[in-house]
Amino acid sequence: VGLGPGDAALRTPAATAAVRHADAVVGYGPYVDLVDDLLTARQAVVRSPIGAETERCREALRRAAAGETVALVCSGDPGVYAMASLVCELAAGFGDPPVTVVPGVTAALAAAAVLGAPLGHDHAAVSLSDLLTPWPLIEQRLQAVADGDFTVSLYNPRSKRRTGQLDRALAILAGRRPPGTPAAIVTDAGRPGQRVIRTTLADLDPEAVDMLSLVVIGSTTTRWLGDRMVTPRGYRSP
Amino acid sequence: VGLGPGDAALRTPAATAAVRHADAVVGYGPYVDLVDDLLTARQAVVRSPIGAETERCREALRRAAAGETVALVCSGDPGVYAMASLVCELAAGFGDPPVTVVPGVTAALAAAAVLGAPLGHDHAAVSLSDLLTPWPLIEQRLQAVADGDFTVSLYNPRSKRRTGQLDRALAILAGRRPPGTPAAIVTDAGRPGQRVIRTTLADLDPEAVDMLSLVVIGSTTTRWLGDRMVTPRGYRSP
Repeated sequence: VGLGPGDAALRTPAATAAVRHADAVVGYGPYVDLVDDLLTARQAVVRSPIGAETERCREALRRAAAGETVALVCSGDPGVYAMASLVCELAAGFGDPPVTVVPGVTAALAAAAVLGAPLGHDHAAVSLSDLLTPWPLIEQRLQAVADGDFTVSLYNPRSKRRTGQLDRALAILAGRRPPGTPAAIVTDAGRPGQRVIRTTLADLDPEAVDMLSLVVIGSTTTRWLGDRMVTPRGYRSP
Repeated sequence: VGLGPGDAALRTPAATAAVRHADAVVGYGPYVDLVDDLLTARQAVVRSPIGAETERCREALRRAAAGETVALVCSGDPGVYAMASLVCELAAGFGDPPVTVVPGVTAALAAAAVLGAPLGHDHAAVSLSDLLTPWPLIEQRLQAVADGDFTVSLYNPRSKRRTGQLDRALAILAGRRPPGTPAAIVTDAGRPGQRVIRTTLADLDPEAVDMLSLVVIGSTTTRWLGDRMVTPRGYRSP
């Protein structure tokens, strides 16, 4: 179940209904907190720690296999760098209980809406986390983003321990885009305390990026129009 | 305002509120129909024809400049191949009225949820429509998708008059992916009459694709697990 970025106004009725009708609500603790308003005393609530993704999915599947209706909650969309793929991978080991993926507004869409319309034309999403993906593959994808002139949303751009990946990503993109290419850092998109930094590829300060940030780098057609980051689709402006 | 794929259960409360509070609701006719349940007699309703995108945005901006609260409705997300970028481009010509982009569940996310989790790792969106984009740029992007091994959602894959673009796109991707790469056609995703064809890159039948379809082609790590299309994020399965 995708809860969207956090703001209940961006949580779909389908997601709300899935949580309300569940016998058990399972998720990373802070994501479970996003649906605190929906939980009732009759529900089992499992707040799972970060890093325990496999065990979290197993817990949900174990309960589903036992006949419970389970809502495994994720922020954003459960199919984008989240739990849906892992649940699908593990389901066969639990007797293949029925799985329904409830989509949500993913961080890239929430951040784009705050910025204007940077994803108005072709775009890509790349995670800079090399915990689960070999760094050479991430570099290959960044190079492809550069070669294809895609607007790109960088998920998991930087943490306290992973600081060099973002520098390297910016360098690869700078090889094919002008220094003035619009760029932005959106932190806690669609959540209380949302922060937005509007800048350019050359001036983007990696120190301002943390684990809760999404970094958006425009294509060569993206422009700052006032404080709005816009990638034209190609309709002729007057 | 992004209405999501069509099903009211995937329309966010923010989108519903924006339509309810609007003095005028403007949009492509079939998208206005998606919010028929919300419209009231006090609202001006402008159903705009297909192809009149610039005039549609001008109408919304003209009304906003005159002090009306206007909801310009799009299906999916307004920032993805839709009206948000054009509104931002044109706004300065109308005295720059305040513009708020209300995000929604875009077709790629709705289709992915139906399929399982094909967007579980890095992914891209490419529109095959060469009405507004030169075909060589689209080919360049498809080649980059192939080189970067991205799962890709192909928007506007085929219409009655544009039939060759999808063939060419599949050929480019086949240059870097095995024939058995999972592929799918989702038509009317998240709407009544939704149809899903689960297939492979080599067996995908372009004749089954129309203007209301989204085509999803997996990366080299994407798998069919039963009827679920899954791109693993990299957690080790048992």
